[in-house]
Amino acid sequence: MTDTVSVEQQARESDLVDRVLRSFDDCTDPRLKQVMQALVRHLHAFVREVRLTEEEWAKGIEFLTATGHITDARRQEFILLSDVLGASMQTIAINNEAYGDATEATVFGPFFIENSPEIEIGGDIAFGASGEPCWVEGTVTDSRGNPLPGARIEVWEADDDGRYDVQYDDDRTAARAHLFTDAQGRYSFWGITPTPYPIPHDGPVGRMLAAVGRSPMRAAHLHFMVSAPDQRTLVTHIFVRGDDLLDKDTVFGVKDSLVKEFQRQPAGTPTPDGRDLADREWSRVRFDIVLAPAGA
Amino acid sequence: MTDTVSVEQQARESDLVDRVLRSFDDCTDPRLKQVMQALVRHLHAFVREVRLTEEEWAKGIEFLTATGHITDARRQEFILLSDVLGASMQTIAINNEAYGDATEATVFGPFFIENSPEIEIGGDIAFGASGEPCWVEGTVTDSRGNPLPGARIEVWEADDDGRYDVQYDDDRTAARAHLFTDAQGRYSFWGITPTPYPIPHDGPVGRMLAAVGRSPMRAAHLHFMVSAPDQRTLVTHIFVRGDDLLDKDTVFGVKDSLVKEFQRQPAGTPTPDGRDLADREWSRVRFDIVLAPAGA
Repeated sequence: MTDTVSVEQQARESDLVDRVLRSFDDCTDPRLKQVMQALVRHLHAFVREVRLTEEEWAKGIEFLTATGHITDARRQEFILLSDVLGASMQTIAINNEAYGDATEATVFGPFFIENSPEIEIGGDIAFGASGEPCWVEGTVTDSRGNPLPGARIEVWEADDDGRYDVQYDDDRTAARAHLFTDAQGRYSFWGITPTPYPIPHDGPVGRMLAAVGRSPMRAAHLHFMVSAPDQRTLVTHIFVRGDDLLDKDTVFGVKDSLVKEFQRQPAGTPTPDGRDLADREWSRVRFDIVLAPAGA
Repeated sequence: MTDTVSVEQQARESDLVDRVLRSFDDCTDPRLKQVMQALVRHLHAFVREVRLTEEEWAKGIEFLTATGHITDARRQEFILLSDVLGASMQTIAINNEAYGDATEATVFGPFFIENSPEIEIGGDIAFGASGEPCWVEGTVTDSRGNPLPGARIEVWEADDDGRYDVQYDDDRTAARAHLFTDAQGRYSFWGITPTPYPIPHDGPVGRMLAAVGRSPMRAAHLHFMVSAPDQRTLVTHIFVRGDDLLDKDTVFGVKDSLVKEFQRQPAGTPTPDGRDLADREWSRVRFDIVLAPAGA
């Protein structure tokens, strides 16, 4: 819209930008100075391009205030905001460039918590969370194909009501755990077949999505964080082939390479570890993980 | 830094931007769609330009969270943030383009409150706030020089400790009031000679300013908001000629046309209205206000 703005007005506006940029001249941390000056340039470019009204500015202040007020130790609305604007996924993309056949990264999301329970290989991460059992197995190798024994695998997911344990009313830990690969770099565990769910949408971010006609739904997924010495830590999900939300995941987390076949297993199908599922259906999926070298 | 990023990586990053932009395609409010898509473009341009690290992203989330948590009915840290990044002043500049000789606008700031007490012309806005008495007088006219009788003038300022009444520990109203111009468009009141003060700097915004080597000080000023039928409402300050903070006001609010001569009056100088100042020094300033037409 700047073509309708007089030359004098444009000069006043760009002079203001210059004054703000110069206010950071005495910053002794060169990286902080670079980040803040770039932030100022892009923020002013946005305000000037859309010719932001004072009412819209006030709405923006109000939105950020509400986002801050709903955020607490168990709910992080600013991460949701970053997620639905694609800023989280862009940061992931920048910091986890493709490296050969290394498994691709995706968004971290707001639901990871430290100190998950440890399980043995073949153990069950559900701890009472509801959902169809899902056998997950695979290997962790480096980018040259060498198995990585003792790699730490954190897994977490929603139950089949679409809720993570941190969204429960009590302090239960459920549907999250960590385990370590064996001497051949193999792992396996019982999880829950992932189901689609909405991000928390009863707050400012949900109201924004509704106002712009966007769905709050995430494609069904299971979170992984995998770390091993000298390897780049991988934060990723696997998605379910056939899920019709794959091309409209509200946080833009889906990558083709992360979409996996969750094979349906009719009731009565024998389980890999002999577990008795009392005539329930179950599913199984294979996810072979390749880590990039640290610093790559 | 994008010159060091591979073509494939750049394509992945710009493809993500396109996907995020398309997610707003179904927005039925064209202005909201325009603002959100522009926000996404500039946000991603910032993240990509500085190659934001995951640690820096997390610091940003933490900063916004702290800014939200310190904000309440009496403290608006997001407005402070907008102010010190020059975004408030830029929004003012865009929405209050110069119009002939009309008085220039500046930042609103976080300290205005509704329902200030009304005073008569010549009354005192201090209501017990500490500071040197200052006689303020002038006229309100339209841009063709016609006096505007009954124009509403809101004035507010800090005391000589640099605090507004909303920063006091009690609920007192002080150093703020409103009055109306007389039949000739004239006004006058007793205020307090403005003194420089820091914006609240014990929170996240203050810590950011310290980290980048910026001062939290504002140039001394007195706030005005002036409204009259068929005129553009003016939000502005007047500043004190000779104040050595004029060129480093932390919210970029100073404009040359708003710097006024506050004339020193030695103890014993007769006052314009015969008020007995008990042998104190005082000051006086003239501020003739010109309003632009509404919609200009």
